[in-house]
Amino acid sequence: MSLLIVGSMAFDSIRTPFGTAERVLGGSATYAGLAASYFTDVSLVAVVGEDFGDEHFRPFYEKGIDVTAVQRVAGKSFFWAGEYSQNLNERRTLVTELNVFADFRPQVGIDQRNMPYVFLGNIDPELQNHVLDQVNGPRLVALDTMNFWIESRPRELAQVLQRVDVLLINEEEARMLADEYNIIRASRWIAGLGPQIVIVKRGEYGALVYMGDDYFITPAFPLQELADPTGAGDCFAGGLMGYLAGVGRFSTAEMRRAVLYGTVMASFSVERFSVERIRELTLPEIRERYNHFRSMIHVEDT
Amino acid sequence: MSLLIVGSMAFDSIRTPFGTAERVLGGSATYAGLAASYFTDVSLVAVVGEDFGDEHFRPFYEKGIDVTAVQRVAGKSFFWAGEYSQNLNERRTLVTELNVFADFRPQVGIDQRNMPYVFLGNIDPELQNHVLDQVNGPRLVALDTMNFWIESRPRELAQVLQRVDVLLINEEEARMLADEYNIIRASRWIAGLGPQIVIVKRGEYGALVYMGDDYFITPAFPLQELADPTGAGDCFAGGLMGYLAGVGRFSTAEMRRAVLYGTVMASFSVERFSVERIRELTLPEIRERYNHFRSMIHVEDT
Repeated sequence: MSLLIVGSMAFDSIRTPFGTAERVLGGSATYAGLAASYFTDVSLVAVVGEDFGDEHFRPFYEKGIDVTAVQRVAGKSFFWAGEYSQNLNERRTLVTELNVFADFRPQVGIDQRNMPYVFLGNIDPELQNHVLDQVNGPRLVALDTMNFWIESRPRELAQVLQRVDVLLINEEEARMLADEYNIIRASRWIAGLGPQIVIVKRGEYGALVYMGDDYFITPAFPLQELADPTGAGDCFAGGLMGYLAGVGRFSTAEMRRAVLYGTVMASFSVERFSVERIRELTLPEIRERYNHFRSMIHVEDT
Repeated sequence: MSLLIVGSMAFDSIRTPFGTAERVLGGSATYAGLAASYFTDVSLVAVVGEDFGDEHFRPFYEKGIDVTAVQRVAGKSFFWAGEYSQNLNERRTLVTELNVFADFRPQVGIDQRNMPYVFLGNIDPELQNHVLDQVNGPRLVALDTMNFWIESRPRELAQVLQRVDVLLINEEEARMLADEYNIIRASRWIAGLGPQIVIVKRGEYGALVYMGDDYFITPAFPLQELADPTGAGDCFAGGLMGYLAGVGRFSTAEMRRAVLYGTVMASFSVERFSVERIRELTLPEIRERYNHFRSMIHVEDT
């Protein structure tokens, strides 16, 4: 079934200990959309500027992603520049130019309003609310957010959280939102705000999922080489929602598999800069890594 | 089958954000021995002072642990005082008094020399070597170490690592030993020093096991309340080695189960101060938590 993704499409300049990349493709909708496209039909809502040309749309075309609702307007695209620390655990923003993104009002197309799966990328919760005002009873809505919105838009965030099924949030941000250090208590408390499923992203340590009054916990896929962590969280979300939309049914078991697929897509993404790796995958290699990963965390029954 | 454990028996004074405990039972052999005793016969080699009375031996008697090779000598027992940070992630040593431990020469008893499973707790690698000189071809030897020995006894540590099957080591210490930040590469490199199995302990994030040119990765058991992290690593080691000695056979599947049992024993230990929790468990509650934990990390095949 179809997956609607709303978020940013951007240019990033990235510096890591392993190299640099100048004005490469980035943004939450970009990463999530490409990751999801291996599993299901994907449709994007975003805004780009005049500097976003046909060559930049090519990865989306190649993956059959519907970009008809991506507004291309006068001005420049969202630009972000950042730099990672030696161990990739810390990231410093050097430049943020909102450009055309400053006036973004997501417009969900007629054909997109009935899409059953919706992923709201990390944008202003007021805009996330605005998207949900335009869709017709989706089956599953997932939302990503960050510390900036927790601090600057608490009221709008609380409002949109009541309207979503799945929240994706970083570990530190979950602690901030719940004002509680213990992540087991924090995730349970956050579920009280609305989302039945709270997915805490723990970077190199994987993810913890609160769902149905219990927890599912998984490590990350172990990588010997990492090039660029940018977009890992969005690829996780895209893989997860793409997988769920692809199978078209929802259960605890499917949710766990979806978290594993999200983890796998994130692991591919960080192997190279920007979308280089996530745009060139094949379903067999995704399935192979999924199976390997599942075998790495599996404990046989006695 | 029997498990021989060599390590420290001590008194600890502990301060955490959740309380304090003065001169309570501690030490690597204490924690590991109690944790292992639920699964197999346990025999300790350690040293205590005159201040270590019958009431301090009681937890070991209650669990049927053989303490005949624990030397009781003139002087005071090893004493450690420490304090944990607000989130329990950091620990500051306030006092270390080696006392009788300063002259400890582990003497393996006649009946202990043929024990098939051996756990060498975190002591001077020279003493760990000395223990291995006294035992007769054990089936499985596990060793724990720490940054202090990595820095001060590199030669002795390298020597003993060639003689053990399993190394247990903290994530930061694995990075230090391998001089490599990436823990996937670090654990593989460490295996080249001798131990076929390298278990990297990641605290609240669980453990990563390098074994047979592949990885097994597990999160920690999620806890809503923690009282005192002291001894968690030793309970992990004790649960793991105790389980393996108890089943008396070795395979990848058994090793994975052993890591889960170790994780479960560590989770019990930190719920209360000192050995309060780890001394009063029952096998049914251990099994119940094991089964719950396994269900939390399990992903069904499609």
